[in-house]
Amino acid sequence: MKALVFNGKSDISIVDKPQPKLVNPTDAIVKVDYTTICGTDLHIIKGDVPETTPGTTLGHEGVGTIEEAGSGVSKFKVGDKVLLSCISSCGTCEYCRRGMSSHCTTGGWILGHTIDGTQAEYVRIPHADSSLYQVPQGVDPKTLVMLSDIFPTGFECGVLNGKVQPGSTVAIIGAGPVGLAAFLTSQLYSPSWVLMIDPDQNRLKVAQELGVQYIAEPNTAQKVVDELTDGKGCDTIIEAVGIPATFEQCQQLVAPGGVIANVGVHGSSVELHLETLWAKNVSITTRLVDAVTTPTLLKMVVAGKLPAEKLITHHFKFSDMIAAYSNFQNAATQKTLKVLIEM
Amino acid sequence: MKALVFNGKSDISIVDKPQPKLVNPTDAIVKVDYTTICGTDLHIIKGDVPETTPGTTLGHEGVGTIEEAGSGVSKFKVGDKVLLSCISSCGTCEYCRRGMSSHCTTGGWILGHTIDGTQAEYVRIPHADSSLYQVPQGVDPKTLVMLSDIFPTGFECGVLNGKVQPGSTVAIIGAGPVGLAAFLTSQLYSPSWVLMIDPDQNRLKVAQELGVQYIAEPNTAQKVVDELTDGKGCDTIIEAVGIPATFEQCQQLVAPGGVIANVGVHGSSVELHLETLWAKNVSITTRLVDAVTTPTLLKMVVAGKLPAEKLITHHFKFSDMIAAYSNFQNAATQKTLKVLIEM
Repeated sequence: MKALVFNGKSDISIVDKPQPKLVNPTDAIVKVDYTTICGTDLHIIKGDVPETTPGTTLGHEGVGTIEEAGSGVSKFKVGDKVLLSCISSCGTCEYCRRGMSSHCTTGGWILGHTIDGTQAEYVRIPHADSSLYQVPQGVDPKTLVMLSDIFPTGFECGVLNGKVQPGSTVAIIGAGPVGLAAFLTSQLYSPSWVLMIDPDQNRLKVAQELGVQYIAEPNTAQKVVDELTDGKGCDTIIEAVGIPATFEQCQQLVAPGGVIANVGVHGSSVELHLETLWAKNVSITTRLVDAVTTPTLLKMVVAGKLPAEKLITHHFKFSDMIAAYSNFQNAATQKTLKVLIEM
Repeated sequence: MKALVFNGKSDISIVDKPQPKLVNPTDAIVKVDYTTICGTDLHIIKGDVPETTPGTTLGHEGVGTIEEAGSGVSKFKVGDKVLLSCISSCGTCEYCRRGMSSHCTTGGWILGHTIDGTQAEYVRIPHADSSLYQVPQGVDPKTLVMLSDIFPTGFECGVLNGKVQPGSTVAIIGAGPVGLAAFLTSQLYSPSWVLMIDPDQNRLKVAQELGVQYIAEPNTAQKVVDELTDGKGCDTIIEAVGIPATFEQCQQLVAPGGVIANVGVHGSSVELHLETLWAKNVSITTRLVDAVTTPTLLKMVVAGKLPAEKLITHHFKFSDMIAAYSNFQNAATQKTLKVLIEM
């Protein structure tokens, strides 16, 4: 079969690989129908993720068809259309039972990270019963690729950790796919308004088209927040970038009693201003997506209340995967949010 | 009347001052029976709290007797014995109604900070109805001085923010009065065990006498936690010191899914290791005590389930207040936790 593999820093290619086989009885082999590229894949290519070894097939998102199911798989049969979660969950370890599948002792984020991923014709999915979901009837499977990672990430790490509630005042820093997914899922909780902060005018325009009430570039955000909140700050700040400058701005914009919900993948430490924040009754939260809200998000898509497909801006065939990576690596000039790859 | 005033950096004295008068109808004048000294008073004397101006009477803790009550005070009458809260709360502003009296728009921590405090024969208490509590019958008023600040602080900022639950594994960094109050109130939630971390052998001994299950000096704490938790870390870390080194240790000791509850008053920023914590599903909380749990803590003292009096190690008359400060400033050599001042 064909697979997109990481060969080492700044080096990817489409290669021929043996089709994956069942290893454990709880595995399933899925024929991939659609996949996509994530910012994390770019981190791996840059050499930021040392545990991903050369030869690994990349990708942790997708929708496919069950090709083969192990004897321990009870919820899926050959031919079922399934959504693949970016998080593999055994469902039985201490962490899974606490709803923290990201820290599953035999799973977590392993696809396209420590085992072969979804950017291939076939993929082995460990713990299939709690890591796959039936594609509901009447839903376009392409839309559901957005639910493998970015929607549960924006919802769990941003909206739920950020305690968005009816009436909340919310700022999201970073209008990339995850920041926009955080905006779309924040609407399930009816905040007063959401302010989207990003230096990229095109992304701010997209955010407005999706329904964001206010937009600002980073250097004007403080003024906008001061005006909107009478100088109090925002109840929830969602950090969807992952660099020291954006985390610094979160600390300036948060209201007394507010929450800074970190979503961004950080590569270095940041300065935390406890000299002022110690008395401000704030919370700072971190989370690697657990994908425990995937069933909820599926229901919202079925109900027509989550326009997840709107984040798909570009389409490629798998044979053009290298071009798809090039497009995604130049997202700003290409005005790319998510690329959809058809196998 | 006599009052202990801050004259400027490193300069305090007992002076004669006019007895305070009612300013607003919701004020009460309280004749102070007992007071104490807080670490925050030492910060003011060091010059760390610029908003406290020379001439201010220090102190925000105490028990006394209502001398005069304004026409708008409905819950107290002349002669009532009362506990004074360190937090003045109007009870009606947005923050008070959200349980965040520390940010009360006309109150908060003002006693001995921006208005005259409790280290005097008489003190004016703004918003008396929601800032004073009746001393319950049969309870030694001296014990209750511990409930003005340190017990609500340890409980709210440490135990409640730290989400201590039955079975939790808890580390408290700093065995001073607030750290010990956090330990004593943590027991209301039945954690598996508490590890107290402090470089001071005497304070660790006191912690053990109070019932702490494990003790460690800072340089052995990691090893102790690794052994006790099989390398996972603690569910709750309570930071009751307020310096970068202790906050750093919190980040090393916290388990995936855990909470770092900051209690310490920090004078500088700290390094936050988001490069590892971003994926660890942790929360970091800050809080200036709101003193909204004072009624709960009073009930626990009445029920005999909170031995608050055990933190009182030294007794002074108000006329020896300068000696009391000297003792408290040399707490380590004097083996001091809290000094009780009798007027």
